[in-house]
Amino acid sequence: MALMAQKPIILSTWDFGINANDAGWKILKKGGSALDAVQAGATVIEDDPTISSVGYGGYPNENGVVQLDAAIIDGKTGRMGAVAAIEGIGNPCAVARKILEKNKHIFLVGDGAKSFALKEGFKEKYLGTQSSMEWYAKQLEKRDKDNGHDTIGVMAQDKKGDLAVACTTSGVSMKWAGRVGDSPIIGSGLYMDGKIGGAVGTGVGERAIEVCGSFAIVEFMRNGMSPQNACEELVRRVVERNNNRPEFQLAFIALSRDGQIGGASIKKGFEYAVCDGKENKIRPGTVYGVDFQ
Amino acid sequence: MALMAQKPIILSTWDFGINANDAGWKILKKGGSALDAVQAGATVIEDDPTISSVGYGGYPNENGVVQLDAAIIDGKTGRMGAVAAIEGIGNPCAVARKILEKNKHIFLVGDGAKSFALKEGFKEKYLGTQSSMEWYAKQLEKRDKDNGHDTIGVMAQDKKGDLAVACTTSGVSMKWAGRVGDSPIIGSGLYMDGKIGGAVGTGVGERAIEVCGSFAIVEFMRNGMSPQNACEELVRRVVERNNNRPEFQLAFIALSRDGQIGGASIKKGFEYAVCDGKENKIRPGTVYGVDFQ
Repeated sequence: MALMAQKPIILSTWDFGINANDAGWKILKKGGSALDAVQAGATVIEDDPTISSVGYGGYPNENGVVQLDAAIIDGKTGRMGAVAAIEGIGNPCAVARKILEKNKHIFLVGDGAKSFALKEGFKEKYLGTQSSMEWYAKQLEKRDKDNGHDTIGVMAQDKKGDLAVACTTSGVSMKWAGRVGDSPIIGSGLYMDGKIGGAVGTGVGERAIEVCGSFAIVEFMRNGMSPQNACEELVRRVVERNNNRPEFQLAFIALSRDGQIGGASIKKGFEYAVCDGKENKIRPGTVYGVDFQ
Repeated sequence: MALMAQKPIILSTWDFGINANDAGWKILKKGGSALDAVQAGATVIEDDPTISSVGYGGYPNENGVVQLDAAIIDGKTGRMGAVAAIEGIGNPCAVARKILEKNKHIFLVGDGAKSFALKEGFKEKYLGTQSSMEWYAKQLEKRDKDNGHDTIGVMAQDKKGDLAVACTTSGVSMKWAGRVGDSPIIGSGLYMDGKIGGAVGTGVGERAIEVCGSFAIVEFMRNGMSPQNACEELVRRVVERNNNRPEFQLAFIALSRDGQIGGASIKKGFEYAVCDGKENKIRPGTVYGVDFQ
């Protein structure tokens, strides 16, 4: 468990994280930066119309509009960028990266975020697909209670040992217009301290915001916990905060500066993909009440 | 320093915090809730056209548009609400409170936040004043580098011992359209854990986002620090993160469940108002490099 992983390494949430890892690995193996790698990982998922919780083809909000959230943190420089509720731009993680590079503000939302993206040369794109809009039409008839919130979160350490994290999502489907979950919130959906490590979450964003999930995990690591123990400690805190009977899924993965990794969730079903060049493989996160208390 | 303050208590950032405290105190002294008190404190500052960093009369963004951010946390129930980049609504803290009460999402931004507010009965209002628009016209000629970012943050403990925090701001003036600072970001601009205490910040929001300032302070208190020591520890972390030569102002105040308070800042000039019924008085925060290292 405490085995030192080999550099470079890249890990991503959910089974489709395998594809994110593949895209990022191409960069890492050539000596590219963790920052470029996590962005590449996020981008390939954004561009995939079959993934209904991220980017193009992501399920829309209550008004039938796809609003995307994304963020990225460079552990090397400490710079950050984030966008929320951006419409008509298919690669919000790349927009977040642009904000990071400008190094003036960190977080742009709504129309302002879109104007910024257009000014920076991003092309407007209709983000609905036949499949996502048919799904939406069905929802209008019978409103489901809980829909997808499978954020792609990607973390990497490059050959030089530098760290980065990114995440990107279309948020919970049928969300209220303008609703922002944890993904673009620095500290909630993701966090990275280049000297310590980072974390990224997926699940019901509001429950992550309430506990500053990703930042808390990094603080736990700063205070000596392993990434695995830190993820479990955070899950424990969420469970306690929700009267010890959480009815929702929330999961986090973490990566420490010394290359250790971890992942834990409230409910069964969470998995993440880890690629260290030798293999790119799905692992289950530990589950509260099953693998730890 | 470690003296137990009397319940109830209310404290607010900056000298105009005196007015926020007055408004909140009227509620607290009658046995009203900390939640109502902090909202009342925020509201009176939002409504004041002479305060150029909050609400009506707040300085506009680069396009001449006033976009407001606010958030509120109820320590008793753990519920939260936040809005960002909302236009044409003069009381964003009240909108955040509505989101808190709906208890569905936590954070709404941009047009979606405005639509929500209008649906909830808020009236549209032009937020510019003659003074703020004359100021804007001048800025277009000679762009100043650093303008106001004096967020009003209000924290209170009521007679029952319950805690709440709110903050509201027009953000840094001449900001990019859609820019969101720390104020509406749970964990950065404000945080409250009803069992521990809370914190709220003011200053250059991006620098608070990078360190999850308010949440970090609450974690420090959870681990045994006094509110004063916790604020100073966070300021120390910000200074270190910025190559030990920060050229910006960032300040935090904190309140613990046992009624202790604290406040600290990077640079001179920060003050906050504390009202415990006997007096409503301005205090200076401790200053890095002067009062502590």
